[in-house]
Amino acid sequence: MARILDGINSPEQVKRLSIADLELLAAEIREELVTVLSANGGHLGPNLGVVELTIAMHYVFETPKDHFLFDVSHQAYVHKLLTGRRERFRSIRTPGGLNGFMLRTESPHDCYGAGHAGTALSAALGMAVARDKAGGKEHIVALAGDAAFTCGITYEALNNIAHHTKKLLVVLNDNEWSIDKNVGAIATYLNAIVTSPRYDYLHERAGKFVQKLGGAVALKMARKAEEAAKSMLWPSVIFEELGIKYYGPIDGHDISTLIKTFEFLKKQDRPVLVHVLTQKGRGFEPAMQKQKKFHGLGPYDPETGETKPLKQRTYSEVFADTLIKLANQNPKIVAITGAMPNGTGLDRFQPHHPDKYFDVGIAEEHAVLFAAGLAAKGFKPFCAIYSTFLQRAFDPIIHDVCLQNLPVVFCMDRGGLSADDGPTHHGLFDISYLRGIPNIVHMVPKDEDELADMLFTAMQWEGPIAIRYPRGVGPGTPVKDVPKLIPIGKAELLQHGENDRVAIFALGALVPMAEEIARKLEGQGFGAAVINARFSKPIDVEMLEFYARSVDVILTLEDHVLRGGFGSAILEELSNLGIATPVARIGWPDQFIEHGKIEPLRARYGITVEAALEKLAPHLTAGKTQTVAAPKR
Amino acid sequence: MARILDGINSPEQVKRLSIADLELLAAEIREELVTVLSANGGHLGPNLGVVELTIAMHYVFETPKDHFLFDVSHQAYVHKLLTGRRERFRSIRTPGGLNGFMLRTESPHDCYGAGHAGTALSAALGMAVARDKAGGKEHIVALAGDAAFTCGITYEALNNIAHHTKKLLVVLNDNEWSIDKNVGAIATYLNAIVTSPRYDYLHERAGKFVQKLGGAVALKMARKAEEAAKSMLWPSVIFEELGIKYYGPIDGHDISTLIKTFEFLKKQDRPVLVHVLTQKGRGFEPAMQKQKKFHGLGPYDPETGETKPLKQRTYSEVFADTLIKLANQNPKIVAITGAMPNGTGLDRFQPHHPDKYFDVGIAEEHAVLFAAGLAAKGFKPFCAIYSTFLQRAFDPIIHDVCLQNLPVVFCMDRGGLSADDGPTHHGLFDISYLRGIPNIVHMVPKDEDELADMLFTAMQWEGPIAIRYPRGVGPGTPVKDVPKLIPIGKAELLQHGENDRVAIFALGALVPMAEEIARKLEGQGFGAAVINARFSKPIDVEMLEFYARSVDVILTLEDHVLRGGFGSAILEELSNLGIATPVARIGWPDQFIEHGKIEPLRARYGITVEAALEKLAPHLTAGKTQTVAAPKR
Repeated sequence: MARILDGINSPEQVKRLSIADLELLAAEIREELVTVLSANGGHLGPNLGVVELTIAMHYVFETPKDHFLFDVSHQAYVHKLLTGRRERFRSIRTPGGLNGFMLRTESPHDCYGAGHAGTALSAALGMAVARDKAGGKEHIVALAGDAAFTCGITYEALNNIAHHTKKLLVVLNDNEWSIDKNVGAIATYLNAIVTSPRYDYLHERAGKFVQKLGGAVALKMARKAEEAAKSMLWPSVIFEELGIKYYGPIDGHDISTLIKTFEFLKKQDRPVLVHVLTQKGRGFEPAMQKQKKFHGLGPYDPETGETKPLKQRTYSEVFADTLIKLANQNPKIVAITGAMPNGTGLDRFQPHHPDKYFDVGIAEEHAVLFAAGLAAKGFKPFCAIYSTFLQRAFDPIIHDVCLQNLPVVFCMDRGGLSADDGPTHHGLFDISYLRGIPNIVHMVPKDEDELADMLFTAMQWEGPIAIRYPRGVGPGTPVKDVPKLIPIGKAELLQHGENDRVAIFALGALVPMAEEIARKLEGQGFGAAVINARFSKPIDVEMLEFYARSVDVILTLEDHVLRGGFGSAILEELSNLGIATPVARIGWPDQFIEHGKIEPLRARYGITVEAALEKLAPHLTAGKTQTVAAPKR
Repeated sequence: MARILDGINSPEQVKRLSIADLELLAAEIREELVTVLSANGGHLGPNLGVVELTIAMHYVFETPKDHFLFDVSHQAYVHKLLTGRRERFRSIRTPGGLNGFMLRTESPHDCYGAGHAGTALSAALGMAVARDKAGGKEHIVALAGDAAFTCGITYEALNNIAHHTKKLLVVLNDNEWSIDKNVGAIATYLNAIVTSPRYDYLHERAGKFVQKLGGAVALKMARKAEEAAKSMLWPSVIFEELGIKYYGPIDGHDISTLIKTFEFLKKQDRPVLVHVLTQKGRGFEPAMQKQKKFHGLGPYDPETGETKPLKQRTYSEVFADTLIKLANQNPKIVAITGAMPNGTGLDRFQPHHPDKYFDVGIAEEHAVLFAAGLAAKGFKPFCAIYSTFLQRAFDPIIHDVCLQNLPVVFCMDRGGLSADDGPTHHGLFDISYLRGIPNIVHMVPKDEDELADMLFTAMQWEGPIAIRYPRGVGPGTPVKDVPKLIPIGKAELLQHGENDRVAIFALGALVPMAEEIARKLEGQGFGAAVINARFSKPIDVEMLEFYARSVDVILTLEDHVLRGGFGSAILEELSNLGIATPVARIGWPDQFIEHGKIEPLRARYGITVEAALEKLAPHLTAGKTQTVAAPKR
């Protein structure tokens, strides 16, 4: 039988369907999601949760004339399916295919992109004000999950909305079934609304309201509509006090009620927030059972939800396991995550040290300030925040941690390309934004064992210190039982020959590439020293000077943008030393990098052995014979 | 008559005074503040507002055992006077003297420094948790102004407090008399509490509460104590829903009530917030009349409050006046400030274009996202945010503005050293944190007229663009009537000789220094080209290459840290070009710079003509005679 979904080439066609057909469409979309993501990976749970919600939004509103902003936008797959991208949907998160998030360049229906949380309400307010100024009538709808309400930016937006516009719809997508994963007072607060006895008390009153709203038909629409509608008048003081009219909570899986509600809300002449209850993973049993796992994941079995176990520990896991060991011995260690226990590996740490574990919600600035407060009182906080999300805490890093020289450790997972996730998630800027700050140390391990050593080193360092490491697995180097202290600012010499013509300073994940380049050079008759740089700040100036004075050319390798990065730091030090040895730099160019697989992206942007050899070639000519002993360490 | 103040060498002595003497002390402190700041400048209004409050805090609590965190900490002068720094107080904000903010290195009573808003509650929570873990009994008190409650970080902290500790006191210092300056729903909300009829209704009930709390004595303490106390039980749903017990509002100038209240609150076993009403500028008529002006200012007449008018417009004023003109013609321009209408000059803009003016509160992230939303709908937002405060919005700049290539203009006042204010306010990092981001343009005007040209240029640029300009006045260059378009990425050649041996690339405020260096070099027999670089991104590679191929040495000058800065960008381009011409770089070193006057600080850290000449000397030897024509432009 032909699927309804196959006839949906634009939201126009959604509007022509009956409620019964919309429900069929929802089922088909679920099947499509489960099938496609079983091959491609992605945010399955969140999208299964918003199927009816997204359908109802497209039924009532008209994108691209009206604008939908999805917070984080990892839950925009259904929106993509309904807005002319159905046929390309099987390409989602694959190289050259659809991005896993909203992208302005991908479709006119994607009016605003995202990847980080907490931006939708503020941007939506900007759009609403723009509409008001231009005299437009279009609707602006910001959909944000309950987790976004742990983020300060969302609050900043709430504080401004009523002051700046009379027309804005906020959809609070509350996964009540998974509320335990959220932390803090606002989660408790939302839960209290849902579970309060007054919820029932309002039954009759809300029934009348719906009668007025939907006409007699509404009351005939059987138990379910009534169930959902009964709470339409539940008052939420927080939102009301902030000048935003609150409606809800309503059943986010009841298309009919959702449509009716949106039809009502679109006519309101004041900012409104509707509290919608949805179920993460709805309709796919494994995803409902394991909500954390199915929030975002790689390929799985579409029948059972089983994923292939990794053969080795990820960097995140090595980080967590090492921190467990360190915390066993050091009572001052505490670990902090911003709503990323799973992504950072700290979910492994938590059961071992529940009293040393803090999940502060999507609140990176608070996380770092909280760490600063702990450090000021003698504790040793390890802040585990992705490189890209730590951008959120840039000011507290400067103003609180580094200026006061407090011993906070920043553990930056996803340092470097984050592959499938794309430009909002790549961690390509942390060297450039951190190395300008006084007092901070910035280091990068070449493998899992060195990560453990660096965590051990960071534990003993009495100032701000950051470690970046890649997403996923590393080379698989076994981690020794007792970690080793690494002298701050000292690189590791991996390979030296008496006739080296090139010195390769490589950072982190690119050390193996350095070794391969050295082998190729060797094949061309040029010796090359290979240095595991370890530190982007401070640079090992002694090692650098030694080689700068003896080789023909220096090569730097970094999984980071070239501008302001590690190679740039090398250039600065050479300039300070007054040494003119040429430097060839390999790293990411000055543009945002799309999603894709690591190797093809590296090939496209010149992070390859070949590109390095090409850059080195002009500096290497036969004939030099100077013999140099290895530097003393 | 000897002053009580002169006997206060530590908070211990405050505790021994009678209420009457504490009130005398308050009067003496006010006089001291007005006198000292009339010479030194500083945050007069805020400190006059917290005299009684700070006295009462020190009466009840015991720093440094207990910890006071002052949000922003511009209101910590009274605290400094009472904590062993009375004799040095006359040095405040002068070179080598007391800093105008809390500094951990200045006193053990300053447990946590600040300068930016919104950090106190989060850091205090970190300290409270540290205390809980260590089994301590000390009190942690965070004092924050109402403006801090427009900041998302404060909300992130509120969301976490009840979850993580049972003992923390938040003092909300609400300048109700100046509430109009605050914006957004939270300001309205606080105002509603204060002005509600229920405030009176609670009179009797609260009177009884105070009787219980303070005993019979409390009721005898005449009208004033009762007045303040009557509202002790006013419920604030927002704070209560977030799990924090609310008390207030109470009169922040009634020492007796304040003391009683703090004695009560310190015994509570749950997080509490006390809402204290104070009057900015209290006790100094000119400061009460002109609250904005006296928030923070330079020297004034201690009798009349008069300040000497500046002879020329500041950069902020030129910015605002130019934007007024541009907005007269371009209906798409909007201006956004984060609670800094005065500091950024936008208070001049607002009356001309009230409908194009947005003050979003201390909410820099929201400000930039709001701008991104406006830009996505075709508007041209000018975000006027100090360089140091824009650090707060680093992630939205990357994730929302640059990734989506939206035409937002960042107008960074206080770009460069912010002198008297010290390290929390210096704007020394914006080149390093911005130039690594794809799509952004970063420019720096050499004078007021060029600022106007750059604003005009930014208006027409179709992508993200940032302009940094210094605090205060520039060289005084008249601004022409019709601004001129500056080609993006093109430097301005100011001086060229046929035998130039040096090329000086100077940015912004250091262009005059470049000219002076060139004169000195001329005197030594070396010609020097002077280039107003204008752009730190993109670099004018053509101009750079021209000179790099013809001179002996390049000199870069920037009012910015050297690491990752403008000179570093020059090194990168030279490396890309494969040109080995040596580069001498002048800029700030890799350390936080204390407060002081600009010239002495520049002298201390080597931002001088002499230092530049010294760096150039090794590269200049007699004998070169190559003749070079000026580059074609």
